[in-house]
Amino acid sequence: MIRAILFDIDDTLFPSTEFAESARRNAIRAMISMGIHKEENELYAMLIDIIKKKGSNYQNHFDLLCRELGEKRPARYIAAAVGAYHNTKTAIQPYPEVPKTLLSLRESGYKLYIASNGEAIKQWDKLIRLQLAIYFEDVFVSEELGEEKSQSFFRKALKRIGCKPEEALMVGDREDADIVPAKAIGIKTARMLSGKFKSNPSVADFQINRISEIPTILKSLK
Amino acid sequence: MIRAILFDIDDTLFPSTEFAESARRNAIRAMISMGIHKEENELYAMLIDIIKKKGSNYQNHFDLLCRELGEKRPARYIAAAVGAYHNTKTAIQPYPEVPKTLLSLRESGYKLYIASNGEAIKQWDKLIRLQLAIYFEDVFVSEELGEEKSQSFFRKALKRIGCKPEEALMVGDREDADIVPAKAIGIKTARMLSGKFKSNPSVADFQINRISEIPTILKSLK
Repeated sequence: MIRAILFDIDDTLFPSTEFAESARRNAIRAMISMGIHKEENELYAMLIDIIKKKGSNYQNHFDLLCRELGEKRPARYIAAAVGAYHNTKTAIQPYPEVPKTLLSLRESGYKLYIASNGEAIKQWDKLIRLQLAIYFEDVFVSEELGEEKSQSFFRKALKRIGCKPEEALMVGDREDADIVPAKAIGIKTARMLSGKFKSNPSVADFQINRISEIPTILKSLK
Repeated sequence: MIRAILFDIDDTLFPSTEFAESARRNAIRAMISMGIHKEENELYAMLIDIIKKKGSNYQNHFDLLCRELGEKRPARYIAAAVGAYHNTKTAIQPYPEVPKTLLSLRESGYKLYIASNGEAIKQWDKLIRLQLAIYFEDVFVSEELGEEKSQSFFRKALKRIGCKPEEALMVGDREDADIVPAKAIGIKTARMLSGKFKSNPSVADFQINRISEIPTILKSLK
């Protein structure tokens, strides 16, 4: 009998990959509007290269891009890029079925939790902007638990929740982070087929295209 | 004969003091919505104390506020506060008469410039969000010129513009930064009566309540 449902955030509750791409595109376009003489796709490719090298949590992607372009007074381009990037990223919306599904799960008596890799403030910012924070009893973020999602991460989370593995369902899009370690300690797993890793094979107990399929899964587990 | 007009940004082109206060209020309210048990005015007073101690460009006002409150898991409150703060600060609007006045000054053949204290990226971000960047030939920010507004700052700016002091008009709300040093080197000065320092006495050549009074000033200087 499932009592607790744990959700990943990115590409599970909202189309994170899509928003990130669109934010980067808008940043590049804003730089061009401010007077950078470079073709959009070429500039975008340079940015993607920098993100790959420095990681997506690095703070100065656009500074570096301006340096590579040889810009001597880059403030205007950095301001334009960061502004456009944030305008897009702060306009995130949940997948349309998410709020209703979370509400109906709460009405049915389930306790809902977040299990997420990343920085605590960043992940809370997303939950607040998505207007979803109120649905969750507690939020487990790797930065606060001291490790990324792993068997031990999930054991700690279950201990805090006060429930057995077989009473929990983990929902997420990442096979390596969300499914494999949770399943290994006996948590039921539902793989969300979305984002960059959509087509990767899965050992999850269930595969879903949207979280509105969860109530059906819960019925089948009774 | 005036050829170049230099403008301050904050409390000259938009009501900066008002937006900052409103952003802080909204941040405090967001923290209370997220569950901080404290009265709004009390929390606001704590924040103002921190800003006074640390300066307004310090990055972690809300982290410090949470520490003072003894919050052990502050991520949700910091995320809520910073999010609400930025939502307000990114919605800045110019004083209503500003875009039309700048446009008409350009049409009349004047060259427009920014002379601003602060960080270059932050000041550019404001110009872009206000949709005013396109009106200015060049933007002089203290961070890039290596010193805050002073006689030497204004001399450097005039050199770059290529005009004599008596051919320039400086418009700003700060007696110490905008008026005194500009006037001292022979630039004409117009003091904008707005923001925190509205009622301070002035040695400016002109005192104005809104920048739409500038065309009349220019006529009187012909």
